[in-house]
Amino acid sequence: MNKDLARLVELDRGRCLVAHIGALLGWDQETCLPSAGIEERSEQLALVQTLEHEKATSPEIGDLLTRLGSTTENPLGAAALGTTERAYLRVARREYDKATKLPGELVAELARATSLSQSAWAEARRRSDFAAFAPHLSKMVELSRRVASCLGPERRPYDVLLDLYEPGSTEDSVAAVFSSLRADLGILLDKIRGRPQVDDAALHRSCPAVRQAELSSWLMDVLGYDRSRGRLDTTAHPFTTTLGRDDVRITTRYIENYFPSSLFSTIHETGHALYELGIDPDPAFARTRLSEAASMAVHESQSRLWENLVGRSLGFWKLKYERLVSLTGGCLEGVRLDDFFRGVNKVEPSLIRTEADEVTYALHVILRFELEGRLIAGTLAVKDLPEAWNAKMKELLGLAPPDDARGCLQDIHWSMGSFGYFPSYALGNLYASQFWAAMKASIPSIEQEIEAGNHAAVLAWLREQVHTPGAAYLPGELVERATGSALDARHFVAYLNGKYAAVYGF
Amino acid sequence: MNKDLARLVELDRGRCLVAHIGALLGWDQETCLPSAGIEERSEQLALVQTLEHEKATSPEIGDLLTRLGSTTENPLGAAALGTTERAYLRVARREYDKATKLPGELVAELARATSLSQSAWAEARRRSDFAAFAPHLSKMVELSRRVASCLGPERRPYDVLLDLYEPGSTEDSVAAVFSSLRADLGILLDKIRGRPQVDDAALHRSCPAVRQAELSSWLMDVLGYDRSRGRLDTTAHPFTTTLGRDDVRITTRYIENYFPSSLFSTIHETGHALYELGIDPDPAFARTRLSEAASMAVHESQSRLWENLVGRSLGFWKLKYERLVSLTGGCLEGVRLDDFFRGVNKVEPSLIRTEADEVTYALHVILRFELEGRLIAGTLAVKDLPEAWNAKMKELLGLAPPDDARGCLQDIHWSMGSFGYFPSYALGNLYASQFWAAMKASIPSIEQEIEAGNHAAVLAWLREQVHTPGAAYLPGELVERATGSALDARHFVAYLNGKYAAVYGF
Repeated sequence: MNKDLARLVELDRGRCLVAHIGALLGWDQETCLPSAGIEERSEQLALVQTLEHEKATSPEIGDLLTRLGSTTENPLGAAALGTTERAYLRVARREYDKATKLPGELVAELARATSLSQSAWAEARRRSDFAAFAPHLSKMVELSRRVASCLGPERRPYDVLLDLYEPGSTEDSVAAVFSSLRADLGILLDKIRGRPQVDDAALHRSCPAVRQAELSSWLMDVLGYDRSRGRLDTTAHPFTTTLGRDDVRITTRYIENYFPSSLFSTIHETGHALYELGIDPDPAFARTRLSEAASMAVHESQSRLWENLVGRSLGFWKLKYERLVSLTGGCLEGVRLDDFFRGVNKVEPSLIRTEADEVTYALHVILRFELEGRLIAGTLAVKDLPEAWNAKMKELLGLAPPDDARGCLQDIHWSMGSFGYFPSYALGNLYASQFWAAMKASIPSIEQEIEAGNHAAVLAWLREQVHTPGAAYLPGELVERATGSALDARHFVAYLNGKYAAVYGF
Repeated sequence: MNKDLARLVELDRGRCLVAHIGALLGWDQETCLPSAGIEERSEQLALVQTLEHEKATSPEIGDLLTRLGSTTENPLGAAALGTTERAYLRVARREYDKATKLPGELVAELARATSLSQSAWAEARRRSDFAAFAPHLSKMVELSRRVASCLGPERRPYDVLLDLYEPGSTEDSVAAVFSSLRADLGILLDKIRGRPQVDDAALHRSCPAVRQAELSSWLMDVLGYDRSRGRLDTTAHPFTTTLGRDDVRITTRYIENYFPSSLFSTIHETGHALYELGIDPDPAFARTRLSEAASMAVHESQSRLWENLVGRSLGFWKLKYERLVSLTGGCLEGVRLDDFFRGVNKVEPSLIRTEADEVTYALHVILRFELEGRLIAGTLAVKDLPEAWNAKMKELLGLAPPDDARGCLQDIHWSMGSFGYFPSYALGNLYASQFWAAMKASIPSIEQEIEAGNHAAVLAWLREQVHTPGAAYLPGELVERATGSALDARHFVAYLNGKYAAVYGF
């Protein structure tokens, strides 16, 4: 390897090491930290984040990138370099620019404003008082516009923000995908509304946490989660975190009277973990920016694929159902597999995004995408947000939020200035279905393999097509390469129609 | 506070913060880390240790100490400063000297040699092959002498090493305490040998880990361990570690057919944790060197006091025994409290230090103290160690090790160059008994208080006399202050005689 490149990798590894230490501090805070330890933990985290920022913004990185021919305009660097090397330079340049292009005073103002905004949001949501939050939201919109103008002064601000989460995407490209999706989901939802509702009362029988933990452990093994490289713990909100190349941990939570919650959250997080553990574009770039996920949405595609396309399918459970019934210890007494399948796939428009089913979920996201785009463009005033939200909710889901707490105050994202993040959630579902279709085309027997318990076949395909390259491709390139075509919502719609025809019998 | 002093405290806090992050990395490695994560974890630890060393050796600290009048010869600094401030300067100077007086090449050579020596020792112990370890031990002795000559060129090398673990002590001061102790323990051991042995077979009944865990949890609460500032986990070897001023964690292990192991190890580690959590010499010096333990031996005195003087007393269990019988779920069926008391206080000379009872334990330590002193002085050649060990073992405990694995190869300490560490273990027992005697003199009803479950009275006395001052006093000063006299082994001997007269009936 070229000497400059080798030095760049070395610096990147040093940064990565610090980032992983920060991840441990964060993981421990959620899983183990005694309550009184939180004050000093914040200081520990701040120290590590400062150190990571120093390492990410070292001027030596900028010099090396320039010497290797990588600029903001032509991030791939000198043409004489290899493909992987150029892919690495692209990611390294992007992250270096992101870390260095914001002036220090803007970073500091953002940190201060975000902290105030988040606590104002929490209080406003508690009291369902949008007016109290509005000034903070205005501030976050303004600061986000300034961020966008620093990072990409010549581009549309919302495009710059979207690019932070889904590199290569734009408001227009996302809108194109969402517009057909929105229409198709409306049609599907009408069909479902025309059928008798599924009865899932049996799934709400009491199941002790210790049994649910056994269930989670069993599923992690079944899906091929290498326990020498990860572990499961419990937290208030489930998550996956990478503490080392060989240390990717997940968490879940146990709701006593709804065991499917931990069951599917464990499958979901296992999907995230399998992705992180499978990234390996080139040993020479291990533990660098190249060995990170391609994007938020690609990450979400992996969790959703395992959770929904595999985990909520009838075939997956056929040979496992007896074991499931036994592990849940009587909860599923008298519940046929078919009832279980329909129960865990119940569709019902609801007010809260995080509780939404597979069909209505994307509608929640489309609502946010449309509104945040207008907030950033300045065509929707902050004060008019509740009215716009409620109108969209009526239009898309036929529901009227009784208050703003269950309306435009429900998500934390905007209070943190994370505009452009929401689309990832829905794009993840779309990627998942498109990957799934390509996998089925390449391995026609894949559903029988899953039924027979051979999930390794699924994992092997994902490893090769999605996991291994890490950040070597932009998400759009990755999808093209794995599926032969650009992102297309029709795969998702076809999948949903097939599944819900079975669930609701139409 | 003086501006220079305030800056010194600030730098020290920065170092402390890094040290606590390192402690989390270490704690996680023992409790949670997936096995494959160990390789990167070593790198994470190395990075944090390097950072901590940088912070501990910053030349600015040296300048500030000098400006404040603290030198190696007169560490207390300018006479005009307050008592606490001067105590702080003494500790800060000591630690700064320790961290800076060793030349870089010696530090590097030590690290390399220690790594080789430790793995050679592990292998030699496995094969009971002293000859294979001897060259490494010679190297560690030589390097330790060089360390001593850097840190205190004008003093006896072993005194310098002892001072690292027990500030203020010397070979002569320790030898004086140990010599009377050795004679008295011999007499006591003979008395015990003349009595029928205790039968503790019932304590070896099977007790599931989950029950032992409940037992541990109960005892932590009983002893006043604030669970909002700590937690219990399981590891191969129990320990206590400080991850923050308000985050002190302990671990234990569960041996199914000997529940007293986890029971007493939890009390022992709780004793360590109560000490760490109780240090608070002055809020202005929170999270500095002043808010650390006075010494290894003082630390050990706190764990041993709770484990042995409180936990292995008859009175402690009187009102709790019924609960203990119930929590162990049948293990103690038919076992009277008196049998339990005698069973957990069984005395039997044995080959292995870590398995020794209260009476013979100090003899194991005296053996090591005498031999390591001679190794460092050069009056015992490494090649003659096995013979000298076996002769001492015969003399002190009447036993002949069948091999070196169960003889001079049993401990890891010398392979790490930790000469001068062993005495702390025995001194801890002596401090504990002397504190105990002083506490009884000051609160004559203390045994009735314990019997009634009022352990807060014990903790309150320890807090005031031992915990609060942290490192403000040298261990010798602390003992004088708390008990009115210098360390005297007779308190320990009197305590043992009283207890074992009851256990063995003489």
